[in-house]
Amino acid sequence: MAMTLGQLAEALAENGMECTLAGDAGVEIRAVNTLEDAGAGEIGFLANPKYQKLLAATRASAVVVRPDRKAPARLNLIRTPDPYAAITALIILLHGHRTHPHWGLSPAATIADSAKLGRDPNVAPHATIGNDVVIGDNVTVYPGCYIADRCKLGDDVTLYPNVVLYEDTILGDRVAIHAGTVIAEDGLGYAPVDGKWVKIPQIGHVEIGHDVEIGANCSIDRATLGKTVIGAGTKFSNLIAVGHGTRIGDNCLFVAQVGLAGSVNVGNHVTLAGQVGVAGHLTIADNAEIAAKSGVVNDVEAGAQMLGQPAMPINDAKRVYATFTHLPEMRQRLKELETEVQRLREQLPPADAKTEGRGGTAPPASGRRRSGGR
Amino acid sequence: MAMTLGQLAEALAENGMECTLAGDAGVEIRAVNTLEDAGAGEIGFLANPKYQKLLAATRASAVVVRPDRKAPARLNLIRTPDPYAAITALIILLHGHRTHPHWGLSPAATIADSAKLGRDPNVAPHATIGNDVVIGDNVTVYPGCYIADRCKLGDDVTLYPNVVLYEDTILGDRVAIHAGTVIAEDGLGYAPVDGKWVKIPQIGHVEIGHDVEIGANCSIDRATLGKTVIGAGTKFSNLIAVGHGTRIGDNCLFVAQVGLAGSVNVGNHVTLAGQVGVAGHLTIADNAEIAAKSGVVNDVEAGAQMLGQPAMPINDAKRVYATFTHLPEMRQRLKELETEVQRLREQLPPADAKTEGRGGTAPPASGRRRSGGR
Amino acid sequence: MAMTLGQLAEALAENGMECTLAGDAGVEIRAVNTLEDAGAGEIGFLANPKYQKLLAATRASAVVVRPDRKAPARLNLIRTPDPYAAITALIILLHGHRTHPHWGLSPAATIADSAKLGRDPNVAPHATIGNDVVIGDNVTVYPGCYIADRCKLGDDVTLYPNVVLYEDTILGDRVAIHAGTVIAEDGLGYAPVDGKWVKIPQIGHVEIGHDVEIGANCSIDRATLGKTVIGAGTKFSNLIAVGHGTRIGDNCLFVAQVGLAGSVNVGNHVTLAGQVGVAGHLTIADNAEIAAKSGVVNDVEAGAQMLGQPAMPINDAKRVYATFTHLPEMRQRLKELETEVQRLREQLPPADAKTEGRGGTAPPASGRRRSGGR
Repeated sequence: MAMTLGQLAEALAENGMECTLAGDAGVEIRAVNTLEDAGAGEIGFLANPKYQKLLAATRASAVVVRPDRKAPARLNLIRTPDPYAAITALIILLHGHRTHPHWGLSPAATIADSAKLGRDPNVAPHATIGNDVVIGDNVTVYPGCYIADRCKLGDDVTLYPNVVLYEDTILGDRVAIHAGTVIAEDGLGYAPVDGKWVKIPQIGHVEIGHDVEIGANCSIDRATLGKTVIGAGTKFSNLIAVGHGTRIGDNCLFVAQVGLAGSVNVGNHVTLAGQVGVAGHLTIADNAEIAAKSGVVNDVEAGAQMLGQPAMPINDAKRVYATFTHLPEMRQRLKELETEVQRLREQLPPADAKTEGRGGTAPPASGRRRSGGR
Repeated sequence: MAMTLGQLAEALAENGMECTLAGDAGVEIRAVNTLEDAGAGEIGFLANPKYQKLLAATRASAVVVRPDRKAPARLNLIRTPDPYAAITALIILLHGHRTHPHWGLSPAATIADSAKLGRDPNVAPHATIGNDVVIGDNVTVYPGCYIADRCKLGDDVTLYPNVVLYEDTILGDRVAIHAGTVIAEDGLGYAPVDGKWVKIPQIGHVEIGHDVEIGANCSIDRATLGKTVIGAGTKFSNLIAVGHGTRIGDNCLFVAQVGLAGSVNVGNHVTLAGQVGVAGHLTIADNAEIAAKSGVVNDVEAGAQMLGQPAMPINDAKRVYATFTHLPEMRQRLKELETEVQRLREQLPPADAKTEGRGGTAPPASGRRRSGGR
Repeated sequence: MAMTLGQLAEALAENGMECTLAGDAGVEIRAVNTLEDAGAGEIGFLANPKYQKLLAATRASAVVVRPDRKAPARLNLIRTPDPYAAITALIILLHGHRTHPHWGLSPAATIADSAKLGRDPNVAPHATIGNDVVIGDNVTVYPGCYIADRCKLGDDVTLYPNVVLYEDTILGDRVAIHAGTVIAEDGLGYAPVDGKWVKIPQIGHVEIGHDVEIGANCSIDRATLGKTVIGAGTKFSNLIAVGHGTRIGDNCLFVAQVGLAGSVNVGNHVTLAGQVGVAGHLTIADNAEIAAKSGVVNDVEAGAQMLGQPAMPINDAKRVYATFTHLPEMRQRLKELETEVQRLREQLPPADAKTEGRGGTAPPASGRRRSGGR
């Protein structure tokens, strides 16, 4: 689909985005692309000033920039306060969302007689749907997926290839799960008996709310009892592990390789950056943000921003980390200061009774210190 | 299956658990559930005092608690010293372990003519079993699994969906491997030649002992030579990576996202908590416990408890971490102390020959310090 | 295949490796094995002196060692300066690379009519190849793989079981991707609107160069716009996550569980050790080496060796980490020094006008310090 730059600007305005057009309103735009890769018929964008230099070199037919951004006169521009939001709208306008292959009900899929499918099912070859599964309308199941007995899927769900749902999993409407992700496998539930591990049957399940999207190769444990929950609108990247019985609120954002232990309570709109780990039985309240690679070992308050291992308030953590590189030097300075103070002490007349009975040389603290950890 | 509370208490007693019943022995119990979710006909438990307040609100028909736990008079109770062990027994009693779908030998599976299967095979559609594979009795292979040539599986093995066993893998009896896990892929074995990486054929294999359970989406490298080993009774959570030639003992417990490099030796009954990393060629001796997110860079002694990156004895680590938040303040105090000592030095009469030949002003140590890293 | 030790030594010499034979040139060698597991007809090697004691106990028919290595007189030896390179050559010679099962075009595979396959295709049962896919010669596709529409694969590509390529993925020649890895899934691309996450269609793709090998259960995001790139000759271990739009150079080596955010630029021959994380929009220049578990939060210069979280030059980091265990003691010493200096100050006569107007008691710095963070 192609539109003129003028039509694109109008469409943005209709979407409530302030924007002005500079240059040729008639230039035809087919696609969005990066400033580096864009060519004729393509529109790019600049949001991060770090990439300013790309403006000079781009061969894009047009660029979306902030109102105050300097740009070469030759470039056709859409100026708007939030180029990122504008380019999102343009991508949806020009490209739309992924269109899935159409399989209908593939004869090479295996679907239990007792499964109930809604309207317009799209089930690929080599997918397997178990007994008493209930599936809504317009659901797409890619090749290699396995939907175990008694799962319930809402409308407009997409399971990308090789997704596995263990039994009794519940998915809301418009849930999308990317390839290789496993939902509701058993968690690490064992009772220690005589030095061995006795398996505790994991009889809970997993419930995933509307509009959740989960990345590739994640694993979400079923609960031992009750349920593991992922709230509506929450988005996961890849390779994320969620322990049994953990409950995650709505509209959270988890970056790749995040790991949560079991029985964690996460509020709404919480951000966990890449490789964050959260210990078991903790609560992370609404709107908290945990920086990459942090290890959360205590409850986190609403709106808190945390960093580090163990995680601490981000401003504290930054000051702590800034000190790290000075530690060897601080240790040396401390030693020199001790030597210097010892020398000063020796230059002073011996302390007498006025110093409240402490001996004039080698006070106990100093003595302990000497034999200590240096 | 439903039993009365009295019957449940008797069953626990027969299992060797001390327990006393308070309340209505005749109430019928069908299921175990969490205190929050339990309703009529369900039994809950309280082990962690943190959740005491749930007792007041629960609608469970009965609760398992410690002998000394306070509880509302209206609640039917089983009192026992280890509620966690008791509830495990009750889950097994009331719910049992997972029952797999029955596929027999699905005509939609692909099984090599030369594969030998034991009694009562249960092989799902879209599973593939290679040449010269030998499989024991009562083995279940879920959809999408691939068992490569010459693998040997013991009795009562369960491979959940999309598990992949590369060639020559050996699994003991009662091994369970959860969905998406890959066993015996090639490790990162390359020889550096002229700035490129020349692949070293990975001709070893993987051996997994009896009663091992492995979570979802793990990867266990085959050995370059010889074998990678996981000992009997060891349990893995999800997304765990084990490098080539690593040997893990019996009855270990590895939490999600643990990573071990190659040629590591892990003893028996070792616990690695979530996101722990272990460098190559190290030994972690029996009963060691490594806390979450730790980075192990040295051998670990038997029974040691370690924490941190780099990992250190856990008590040391806790004291070190407690110091972190004081570092910026310590640096400031050090600077002020230097200023103060300098001021004191200036108030003293110049040092003379009595100070053993050191110059009276600007001693070398101090001079070095000044030009140093501040 | 079996050869005499003499023939093996000759073969190494023909490969340009200096080597001398000590012992029985006529002994027949069938296989390479570890020193511990090797028996009659097998050759082992010793490169790491840590394993010296294994030489005394080995039952291998021959061992490859350095020229200066002491070894029991009974052992047949090939002495060579680089035993690791020599054993690599011997493994290739005696064992060769993996031979794949031969499936031809399995009738149980699902291949779109519009897909174009090169010579000698080897497509397993339960594999799915989408519309307009173009595949080179001698390509092997294991069971459960999914190749989405419009992907392009070079010659001699191997996709191990359950690999998923999303649409438009491009693979060079001789690419090998291990089981369960997902290429070109959507990245975490959402625009925040009114506290919710609006999906940005991810319209970019992934390009993977010649001779790349990727481990098991990795996930490589497609770009939002443009492409995510993995350069020729680069090798990945398992469970690695690469964010959208990240570009990785040639001949890099990434160890297991590495995670890169989006829009990272990685140069050539960069090594990322296990569990390393790299924040978004950074550049890591050629030949940099990042030690295990490091968190990279700034650009890294060519050839730099980095360690830590946050990552710093490795020598700095080692000195910093060596200080960690001293921190509680340093804090104590600092406190004692403050007490001592206070005592010294009290022993001095009150400072007067000579001290440039500073008050004689309780200088401001000291006062601040007292009320401070101890």
